[in-house]
Amino acid sequence: MIKLGQKDFQNFEKRYRGNFFNSLTGFKSLNLIGTIDQKKQTNLAIFNSVFHIGANPAYVGFISRPNSVPRHTLENIKETSFYTVNHVNELIYKQAHQTSARYPKEDCEFEMTGLGLEFKDDFCAPFVKESNIQLGVRLIKTINIPENKTIMVMGEIVDVYLNDNFLCEDGHVNIEKAGTICGSGLDHYHKTQKIARLSYAKPNLNAEKI
Amino acid sequence: MIKLGQKDFQNFEKRYRGNFFNSLTGFKSLNLIGTIDQKKQTNLAIFNSVFHIGANPAYVGFISRPNSVPRHTLENIKETSFYTVNHVNELIYKQAHQTSARYPKEDCEFEMTGLGLEFKDDFCAPFVKESNIQLGVRLIKTINIPENKTIMVMGEIVDVYLNDNFLCEDGHVNIEKAGTICGSGLDHYHKTQKIARLSYAKPNLNAEKI
Repeated sequence: MIKLGQKDFQNFEKRYRGNFFNSLTGFKSLNLIGTIDQKKQTNLAIFNSVFHIGANPAYVGFISRPNSVPRHTLENIKETSFYTVNHVNELIYKQAHQTSARYPKEDCEFEMTGLGLEFKDDFCAPFVKESNIQLGVRLIKTINIPENKTIMVMGEIVDVYLNDNFLCEDGHVNIEKAGTICGSGLDHYHKTQKIARLSYAKPNLNAEKI
Repeated sequence: MIKLGQKDFQNFEKRYRGNFFNSLTGFKSLNLIGTIDQKKQTNLAIFNSVFHIGANPAYVGFISRPNSVPRHTLENIKETSFYTVNHVNELIYKQAHQTSARYPKEDCEFEMTGLGLEFKDDFCAPFVKESNIQLGVRLIKTINIPENKTIMVMGEIVDVYLNDNFLCEDGHVNIEKAGTICGSGLDHYHKTQKIARLSYAKPNLNAEKI
């Protein structure tokens, strides 16, 4: 093993640094976040930082990068308070990646990438038709992280759309069966293969495959 | 597709709810966090919520659950300001899972699970010997989330240990080659298979495999 420390990090070129540190936390969730502004202009962007905060209430978070460049997703969420989170699967990962291009605000990423735009029931933000697990989320609050000017966005899941084939008896959702994929670094895409489910761990009783 | 909404969520039994919402954000990173208290008692616990916050400085976050039950990891981090983040791989996932059992504070999870305890250089917190990617992290701050009593812990990566076979020319770390695995829900473990790396996305130029 080699050791890299802060003196090494200081010499990293900007892109090298981005690739390196984005790889170090492990595999990442991949989701398309759909939003709309008050003028009914939609936006769609891929995020690799959506994470679970709690089940009761059902809170999720994601990190939005600094506002030094326009961040249409965050602007729209602040305008309307609602957004959708749509799992990326193997059939749409190229289009999902393409949403990261810096399209001007007047361009619609759904049109530009060919992903299907879907409005459902009375939810104001657009869903991604090809996504097999779709969440409707309401903004709870944003948390500024002044140390690097990022913003953590926290929301509550209010609607879930999925095929009931993916929903297990105990509430677990089989996201591998749903085709959900994951990411590493900034631009690597991976499918998964289940190793095991393990039983609830207790002291003095080794967890087993179940 | 079926739709589940907040009225449905209210009827979920507690474990069903936990399984369900823990599945909905997508695949999760799996890391063992190693800590030590001022009396030199070590602790090791698996976390599925470590996420990237920024590359410059190199900030990472994780979510610690409510303090209503003892949270040795968070207590130790507050005492010493340092912790390690160690990728879980296929060879150690059972032991990693076993660290989630509620051992009393005087029990050492390294001993209980058989994972190798390793102190390196002058870093105060213990690393996991069998882990192929190991991070030394310094606490920056904790952010209370009063809405559900969780705590977000934010730290800066100060040391990285890895085999240089995993480090690519452009700074990307091949975590799949390192054997790093990911999780879904609360208790499912998955290995990965790379689909592709895609080029930097630009408007009017479709991203390609590279």
